[in-house]
Amino acid sequence: AQDTKAPHGYTYGTKEIAKSPFTLDDLQLLEQSMLFNDEDVKYLRMSHDILAGQTDQILDVWYGFVGSTPQLVYFFGNKSTGKPDGEYLAKVRARFKMWILQTAEAKYDQDWLNYQYEIGLRHYSAKKNKTDQANSVPIINYRYIPALTIPVVTTLKPFLAKTGASSADVEKMSNAWLKSVLLQSILWGQPYMKKGEF
Amino acid sequence: AQDTKAPHGYTYGTKEIAKSPFTLDDLQLLEQSMLFNDEDVKYLRMSHDILAGQTDQILDVWYGFVGSTPQLVYFFGNKSTGKPDGEYLAKVRARFKMWILQTAEAKYDQDWLNYQYEIGLRHYSAKKNKTDQANSVPIINYRYIPALTIPVVTTLKPFLAKTGASSADVEKMSNAWLKSVLLQSILWGQPYMKKGEF
Ligand code: HEM
Ligand code: HEM
Repeated sequence: AQDTKAPHGYTYGTKEIAKSPFTLDDLQLLEQSMLFNDEDVKYLRMSHDILAGQTDQILDVWYGFVGSTPQLVYFFGNKSTGKPDGEYLAKVRARFKMWILQTAEAKYDQDWLNYQYEIGLRHYSAKKNKTDQANSVPIINYRYIPALTIPVVTTLKPFLAKTGASSADVEKMSNAWLKSVLLQSILWGQPYMKKGEF
Repeated sequence: AQDTKAPHGYTYGTKEIAKSPFTLDDLQLLEQSMLFNDEDVKYLRMSHDILAGQTDQILDVWYGFVGSTPQLVYFFGNKSTGKPDGEYLAKVRARFKMWILQTAEAKYDQDWLNYQYEIGLRHYSAKKNKTDQANSVPIINYRYIPALTIPVVTTLKPFLAKTGASSADVEKMSNAWLKSVLLQSILWGQPYMKKGEF
């Protein structure tokens, strides 16, 4: 998505990423079930240039929320000391920034789907900590992942409004973000569940 | 919640319901993580009397959506014929109506939490079909459960507006419903996951 050098561990679209066991056809059925449609894609894309210049401020707010919520910052904690691992937080943050832009780009094709699977694995015991060689807790409890949709989308809204979009457009962009973040947090649940149960 | 006779299989608050392995303390931490607070409780309760007279129309819309979405109505299908099981649909609908009122009552105490666990089990292989002795498919794939939050909340909004509440109040009630439905759909995931992973 970017011309700038990819952050450490950001392997989107590369050969290092396995094919998602969840197919594009499965994805379409899921999108339908949550009324995610072309309108949403349009408004996500509208948000891209609005957000592109504000990613650092957005991440400050999100990290501020996670940092001040003990049951969340726990998952960035050092396994031995329990203290937040600053290096780990910083490395993830660089990839998180790419994620904002990629979500707004809304090119939800096979590469995107494959990387969703990878992000799921990185929250799960299969791959958590591996990318950054962090000495942190082994898994993020799934329940917090879709839950975080709410603070993410709620705190994003003022940034959507900051560059002069009409309030109707802000509303629609925010709604599209809600659906996209929820969709992704659902996809990230795949490694946590058995094949026929997910 | 109601004076009227409880529908078949609606065992909320009875001794038939096991204690939720997820505690009220766990619940509080999860609520915090999704910014679910006293304001939301207030606006859910405000919605109670607005919705109480409209549950049938609401259910018509929700059932209309599920009925016209093949990948969803599948889960109400007869295992042998694949056809939607009308009796099963009708029996669940009567409990669904109670659920609308209970969600709006927003008394999220131990009884409520226990019944959340029960609802999870009824979507999962552990208890699906048992309550209504339905001859349907054995499990609802989890991914569709949080996904359905979106159509449920989107289609509820006009009903919140129908009895003259201000648009600011409608907005806040709708937002509280979003958080509550997402919270519940997350809780229902517990049976699908291992203890330390949920
Ligand atoms: C809507 C919910 C969430 C979003 C949008 C989100 C987003 C992301 C993104 C984009 C990454 C980097 C992926 C990559 O490696 O390219 C990431 C990694 C991570 N997230 Fe989340 N996340 C969510 C929920 C959570 C929750 C609830 C926690 C718990 C505090 C959490 C903790 C982490 C951690 C520890 C990593 C690093 C994983 C690793 O070791 O590679 N995330 N998240
Ligand atoms: C936000 C999402 C959802 C909500 C609010 C919801 C709500 C409910 C409620 C209140 C009940 C009755 C619980 C009781 O027995 O008292 C129920 C049962 C049921 N739901 Fe859901 N549901 C959701 C997602 C889904 C999805 C995605 C499907 C798939 C079509 C589904 C299919 C069913 C079925 C088949 C039953 C009957 C289960 C049994 O055999 O007892 N639900 N649901």
